[in-house]
Amino acid sequence: MTVDADMIIPTYDDMLTAHERIKSHVRRTPIRTSEYLNELTGAHLFFKCENFQEPGAFKVRGAANAVFGLGEAKAAKGVGTHSSGNHASCLSYAASLRGISCNVVMPRTAPQAKKDTVRRYGGQITECEASTSSREATFAKVEKETGADFVHPYNDPRVVAGQGTCSKEFIEQVDGLDAVLAPIGGGGLISGTCLTLSTLAPECQVIAAEPEQADDAYRSFKAGYIIADDAPTTIADGLLVPLKELTWHFVSNHVSDILTASEEEIISAMKLTWKHLRIVMEASSAVPLATILKNNKRFAGKRIGIVITGGNVDLDRLPWLT
Amino acid sequence: MTVDADMIIPTYDDMLTAHERIKSHVRRTPIRTSEYLNELTGAHLFFKCENFQEPGAFKVRGAANAVFGLGEAKAAKGVGTHSSGNHASCLSYAASLRGISCNVVMPRTAPQAKKDTVRRYGGQITECEASTSSREATFAKVEKETGADFVHPYNDPRVVAGQGTCSKEFIEQVDGLDAVLAPIGGGGLISGTCLTLSTLAPECQVIAAEPEQADDAYRSFKAGYIIADDAPTTIADGLLVPLKELTWHFVSNHVSDILTASEEEIISAMKLTWKHLRIVMEASSAVPLATILKNNKRFAGKRIGIVITGGNVDLDRLPWLT
Repeated sequence: MTVDADMIIPTYDDMLTAHERIKSHVRRTPIRTSEYLNELTGAHLFFKCENFQEPGAFKVRGAANAVFGLGEAKAAKGVGTHSSGNHASCLSYAASLRGISCNVVMPRTAPQAKKDTVRRYGGQITECEASTSSREATFAKVEKETGADFVHPYNDPRVVAGQGTCSKEFIEQVDGLDAVLAPIGGGGLISGTCLTLSTLAPECQVIAAEPEQADDAYRSFKAGYIIADDAPTTIADGLLVPLKELTWHFVSNHVSDILTASEEEIISAMKLTWKHLRIVMEASSAVPLATILKNNKRFAGKRIGIVITGGNVDLDRLPWLT
Repeated sequence: MTVDADMIIPTYDDMLTAHERIKSHVRRTPIRTSEYLNELTGAHLFFKCENFQEPGAFKVRGAANAVFGLGEAKAAKGVGTHSSGNHASCLSYAASLRGISCNVVMPRTAPQAKKDTVRRYGGQITECEASTSSREATFAKVEKETGADFVHPYNDPRVVAGQGTCSKEFIEQVDGLDAVLAPIGGGGLISGTCLTLSTLAPECQVIAAEPEQADDAYRSFKAGYIIADDAPTTIADGLLVPLKELTWHFVSNHVSDILTASEEEIISAMKLTWKHLRIVMEASSAVPLATILKNNKRFAGKRIGIVITGGNVDLDRLPWLT
């Protein structure tokens, strides 16, 4: 593919720099295994628990890399983003660690719990209407007033380099992985995984897992260009956003395959993981296991790494109980 | 107190031997922390995740010590117990690792899920009526027929020595603990904790946590003799059984205090832990945090270890949703 001349593609060294920068601020999360899940799938599964990051998601890696990479003068003006998910709370958390401000533009209609989490970490919320135009106009206003540095949830080289530190640790923690599977939404984590593994473990496949009901990355991958859906609906609500040019670069060049799973398969894999790994994780994090259960012949006997991306769940509304 | 001449009290060396014996069969479970829970309580909390043992409970330690400590001739006849809880599945699991049989006497009325778990690990269930007399008569029959070695859930020196290995790891993993808190039912874990810490870290207090609605250990502790309730009811259903002579020895001699919490406080602490530590754990495991929240001045600024005892939960019946 042709690379946009303006697009900055992070390098392996950027990822190494990111890891040095953030490692005292984020957790080196543990690996969980289950003999039961290994028997069930016929594979050797290793789950990296990014849900155990303090703000509950891998996104703290990219956020911390952006925040701690700023020079003093830029940092003094703070950071900002538009997001109603884990990126907003992770960026607020990272900013609070550095003691700088974080401005978050969020739809008025976002769940109260998400707003509460951002505020708990000291993030300042500016509400907008639930449309792209309102969100962008509102953010432009905030940016102009504050001079905050905009940190995109995934289409940002600092963020991709930060997310790549997860698979660096994974390779250090588990020998001989045949593949790493991670869910794909905007593609920040998958891009970071490609960035790291293409140098550190080129024999290890990178496989993305996606809900059937939000399979724009799968269709993009097959078509050879970015397809963005307007308003997909899935229980895996961390995976609704489309690929952008930076993440498409990594997906189109380095991803081995994209596999999909139905809502029912995702919910079933989610409950199975809660029961046998005894961890609280989001539906999005269950998509990789759902695709392994569905394609078990392909993975039989293999050593498979799975990134558990997040653990911020509404415990009053569990999908198998509604 | 007077010690029964027949009672074998395990020593610190027995615990060290147990650890050597079982450490390739059980997990050295990780420690989880939460900045949020530290802020909330004002203490420094360290949670040892025994729910991450393969069969989901610390009880695999005592069970494995009993199973792997048997000579070949005894082992050939297998092990047995009466229990409808985690001890039954952990003993079955440990027996399966050694490739010997495990006979479990369980009330006909025990939940199907509990029976399924025992059978998944190869345990053979003999059903009895839900009375002590039926249970004991049935077990005597099984014992006579099979020659199985009886492993009591807690009133057994091998079991107490095995449970003691948990706090050995805890002290190796976390420096300068001021106290270790664990839930108390029959007292096996608390006894093992006393056994280990009284030698390894005598300055570290051992504090037991108990549901108000099943506070027989608390009342025993205050009275100076064992008080056993007939049929207590609590959401913390791992903590229904009474102390026995061996565990009373440790509780009466080494425990610093026993604190209690209400059902509501336990459920609230359980949900709080699921949300912020992002682990699946039983209501019983929430009792220590519930007592810390209730007595927060006492624990302010202190370094407190908490044993998360188990994670076998019916995900269709969560206590805050019923």
